[in-house]
Amino acid sequence: MFETAEVGNKISKSVYKKGLAKLREDILAVQKELAASKTSAIVIIGGVEGAGKTETVNQLLEWLDARGIETHALDAPTDEERERPPMWRFWRMIPPKGRMTILLGSWYTRPIVERTFGGMKRSEFDEALDKAVFFETMLRREGVTLVKFWLHVKEKTLVKSMKKLEKDPLQSWRVTKNDWKFVKKYGRFREVSEEALGRTNTKDAPWHIVEAEDDRYRNTTVARTLIAELKRGFADKEKAEKPPLKPRAFKPPQSNIFRTLDYTRKLDEKKYDKELPEAQAEFHRLINRMQSKDRSLILVFEGADAAGKGGAIRRVTQALNAKDYRVMSVAAPTDEEKARPYLWRFWRNLPRRDKVTVYDRSWYGRVLVEKIEGFCTDDEWMRAYSEINEFEKELSDSGIIVLKFYLSITAKEQLRRFKEREITPYKQYKITEEDWRNRSKWDSYEASAIEMFEKTSMPYAPWTVVEAEDKNFARIKVLKTIISHLKKEL
Amino acid sequence: MFETAEVGNKISKSVYKKGLAKLREDILAVQKELAASKTSAIVIIGGVEGAGKTETVNQLLEWLDARGIETHALDAPTDEERERPPMWRFWRMIPPKGRMTILLGSWYTRPIVERTFGGMKRSEFDEALDKAVFFETMLRREGVTLVKFWLHVKEKTLVKSMKKLEKDPLQSWRVTKNDWKFVKKYGRFREVSEEALGRTNTKDAPWHIVEAEDDRYRNTTVARTLIAELKRGFADKEKAEKPPLKPRAFKPPQSNIFRTLDYTRKLDEKKYDKELPEAQAEFHRLINRMQSKDRSLILVFEGADAAGKGGAIRRVTQALNAKDYRVMSVAAPTDEEKARPYLWRFWRNLPRRDKVTVYDRSWYGRVLVEKIEGFCTDDEWMRAYSEINEFEKELSDSGIIVLKFYLSITAKEQLRRFKEREITPYKQYKITEEDWRNRSKWDSYEASAIEMFEKTSMPYAPWTVVEAEDKNFARIKVLKTIISHLKKEL
Repeated sequence: MFETAEVGNKISKSVYKKGLAKLREDILAVQKELAASKTSAIVIIGGVEGAGKTETVNQLLEWLDARGIETHALDAPTDEERERPPMWRFWRMIPPKGRMTILLGSWYTRPIVERTFGGMKRSEFDEALDKAVFFETMLRREGVTLVKFWLHVKEKTLVKSMKKLEKDPLQSWRVTKNDWKFVKKYGRFREVSEEALGRTNTKDAPWHIVEAEDDRYRNTTVARTLIAELKRGFADKEKAEKPPLKPRAFKPPQSNIFRTLDYTRKLDEKKYDKELPEAQAEFHRLINRMQSKDRSLILVFEGADAAGKGGAIRRVTQALNAKDYRVMSVAAPTDEEKARPYLWRFWRNLPRRDKVTVYDRSWYGRVLVEKIEGFCTDDEWMRAYSEINEFEKELSDSGIIVLKFYLSITAKEQLRRFKEREITPYKQYKITEEDWRNRSKWDSYEASAIEMFEKTSMPYAPWTVVEAEDKNFARIKVLKTIISHLKKEL
Repeated sequence: MFETAEVGNKISKSVYKKGLAKLREDILAVQKELAASKTSAIVIIGGVEGAGKTETVNQLLEWLDARGIETHALDAPTDEERERPPMWRFWRMIPPKGRMTILLGSWYTRPIVERTFGGMKRSEFDEALDKAVFFETMLRREGVTLVKFWLHVKEKTLVKSMKKLEKDPLQSWRVTKNDWKFVKKYGRFREVSEEALGRTNTKDAPWHIVEAEDDRYRNTTVARTLIAELKRGFADKEKAEKPPLKPRAFKPPQSNIFRTLDYTRKLDEKKYDKELPEAQAEFHRLINRMQSKDRSLILVFEGADAAGKGGAIRRVTQALNAKDYRVMSVAAPTDEEKARPYLWRFWRNLPRRDKVTVYDRSWYGRVLVEKIEGFCTDDEWMRAYSEINEFEKELSDSGIIVLKFYLSITAKEQLRRFKEREITPYKQYKITEEDWRNRSKWDSYEASAIEMFEKTSMPYAPWTVVEAEDKNFARIKVLKTIISHLKKEL
C-alpha cells in the first residue's frame, strides 16, 4: 500500500512558487463554499512520526482563513474523558456546519499504537476498526465531510532527517524520544497501519496516502486533495437532500405488545405505601454497589403524553443522593446542537462514571415524534435505529447499564388525564395544543413505538413496556425492573 | 444570625393543603415569566447537612416544570476542573436566559468546609468571600438572578432526627458518615457559616435563612421566597435596560503611547533569519520548563486590522508541538453564548494546565469594537474593565501566565496593506467592508485602546504595545518579550 508513496515525488521551488498563488485562491474559495454550505469537515492528518504532520497543519492554517478552523492534537485522555466511552472525546471535537476541524491524532491512534507496541489484541483491533467505519459513515450521512491523510516517509529517509535535525542546536527540539521509539518499531508500525488503512478505506471516507519526503510536494498534495474532497462533500450533501424512496409504512401485527398489555393491573395505596420505601431502599443499596464497581446507569423514559413519566422518575430519584443523579429533560436543540450530527447533543451531556442519569424523553424522539411530524427526513429516521443501537452499544461497552422504559396507557385514560390537567390550574402547563395534536395521531405513535421496540430492544439495552394505567403499579414496576437488572449486572 | 431560624416555625397539614394549589400556580407562573424574560436564575440551596437540602430540591422540581431546570450537586472536582481556575466549574453551570440552575453546594462550600475543619487560612477565607461577592455582582449585572438559601436546624433537633432515621432500616441510608462528621463540628461550622453569610449578604444577592425543622414550612418558605426574588430579578433587568447616564468621552492626552512609538524601527531579513530560529528555540525550552512546573500561558493579540497579528502568532506557534497549544480566533458568539454573561464564552474554552493558548482578538473586543460600534450598552463596556481585570486575576492566581500584545501600525501603513490585500487574490478575504469602516474610526480606536491600556494593564497581566510597521521587527519583539517574561516567571 505504501509503495506508491516511496517513489520520490518532488516539486521544484520554481514550479511550487508558480502554482502557489492559485492554490491559495482555490483553497480559500472552497473554504468560503464550506462556510456557506450545510456541511462541516474533519481533516485527519495521520502518518509516521517525523513525516511533518505538524508542519503540514501549520501550512494549512497559513493558507486557509484560520478563523474558521479548530485544531485538536490528541493528548492523553483526561479523567472526564476516561470516564466516558472512548469516542466521547472525538464527539466533543465535531465542528458545527460551515466549519473545519483538523485532527492530529484520531480514533485510529490508539488502535494502531497499541497494536504496534503489542498491547492490543487482534479482536480489539478489529472491533476498533469496525467502530471507526461505522462512526465515519454516520458522520458522512450527517453532513460531515471526512478527509483522511496519511503522511508516509521511508525508514531510511526518516532516520537521516532526524539525525540531521538533532545536529542543529536550534532544531534539535523538534526530535523527541517518542519519534525514536517509533522509528525503532518502523516495520511493525508500517504493517499495522497498512491493515488499519486498508480496512477503513471506505467510499465515504477514503484514505489519502501522501509521500512526505518533499515538503512542497506534501503540502501541495494535501491542499489539492482537501479541495477536491470538500467539493465531493458538498455534492453528496445535495444528493442526500433529495428525498429518498418513500419507506414502506410499517404495519404492526394485529396482535402486538400494546394489545397484550393488561391495563387493569393495579396496586392499592396500602400496598404501594409499603412497597415503595422497600424498593427505594433496595435500589439505593444497589446503586452503592454499582458505584463501588465504577459502573453507571442510564434510564430512558418514553411514553404517551400524561403516561406518568415525571412521577415515575421522581420515585426513582427520591432514593438517590442529589450528587449521584441527573435528570435530563430533552428540550429543543440549540443552534450549536442543530449544527452538528443528531446524537451530538446526547453525547455532549453523557454522565461521568458512578452516576445515574435519567432521560425524560430521549434520542428516541427521532423515531417517534420527529418521524411522525416529519421534523426529520425519511433517510434520517430510517438510519437512526442502527445509529442508536451503535450509540447504546458504546455506552454499554464502557460499563454503563442502559435500561429503557415505555409507559403505556389507553387512549381513554389519556383523555381522562388531559381533562384533569385542564381543570387543575397548576397542571395546565402540562397540557398544550401539541398534546392534543399528538393524541390525534395515536395510532401512528403506537405503530412507531412497536417498530422502535422491534429495532432497538437489545440484550445490552432492553425496552420494558410498563402498564401505566395505574400510577402506583407503574412506579413500583419500574423500580422493581431496575432492581432486578442491577442484581443481574452487578 | 441563625437565632431567627430557631423559633419553631411550623405549618399545619391543613393550612399547607389549603395553600398548596395556589402556591403551585404562582411558582409555575413565575417560571413561565422567567422563560420569557431576558434573565436566568441560579438558586443556591445551602445549609447544614441533614437540614433537608436534597428534599427541598426534589420538592421544587415537583412543583416547577422540571424541563426548565438543571440541578448540579457539587462533587469532588474533576482533573479538568482542577486544571483551571476554581470558578471554572461554576461558570460551566451558568444557565442560559430563561432557564434556572439549582445548586446543591456552591462557591461557598469549599471556603466554609475548609475553614470549619481548619484547612483554610483566614486570608484565603476572606479572599474567597470577596471573590464570591464580585462574581455575584457581575452575574446580577448580566441578568442572572441569584437566590441564596441557607437551611438551618438546631444541633439538638438535627441529632434527634438523624438517630431516628438511622433506626429505620428503610431510611437509614439517608444518614451518611459525612452528616455525623458535620454534626460533631456543628458549633464551629455555625460560626464560620454565620460569618460567610453575613459578609456576602449583598443587595444584589441576599441570603435567605430558612428554619428547616418543619418540612412544610421549609418548602413553602423556599418556594415563596423564590417567587419574590425572581420577580425582583425581572424588575432589576428592566431598570438595567434603561440607558444609564452617558459616560464622559475619554480624551487621550496629547502625548500618549501611540505618539511615543518609534515606527521607523526595522529588522533586515538577514538579522531576522538569524534571530527567529534562535528565539523560537529558546521559547521552546522555556515552554518545556513551564510545563515541568505545571504552569500555562495565555497570549492575547489585539491591534488594528492588517497590523500583522496572524503572522506574529504563527511565528510563536511554529516553536511549539501541536498538542501543546491552541489558537482561539474570536468569532461571533453562538446563541448559547449570547444567552449567558459576556465572559462565559471565554471561560468555557479556557486551556488546561501545561498548555499555551493564543487569542487572535479576545475579550477586549468588549471595550474596543463593541464599545465603538455600540454593540453593547455603555453600562456593559464601562464595567467590563473591572470584570476583565478580575477574570485575568483568577487566571493568574491559578498559575496561568497572561501576556497581552497590541500590534500598532500607522494609518498610512494600514492603507498600504489594505491596498496590497485588494490586489492579491488570496489575501482579498482578509479585507472587508468592515475593515474600511473601522479604519474610518481610527481615532476612536486609538482612544479606546489607550483607555484600555490605562485600565487593564496589570502587573499580573501586562500589555505590550508593539511597533508593527516592520513585520520582522514586530515578530521578534513579540517573541523576545514572551521570553523575558517567562524567564522572570519561571
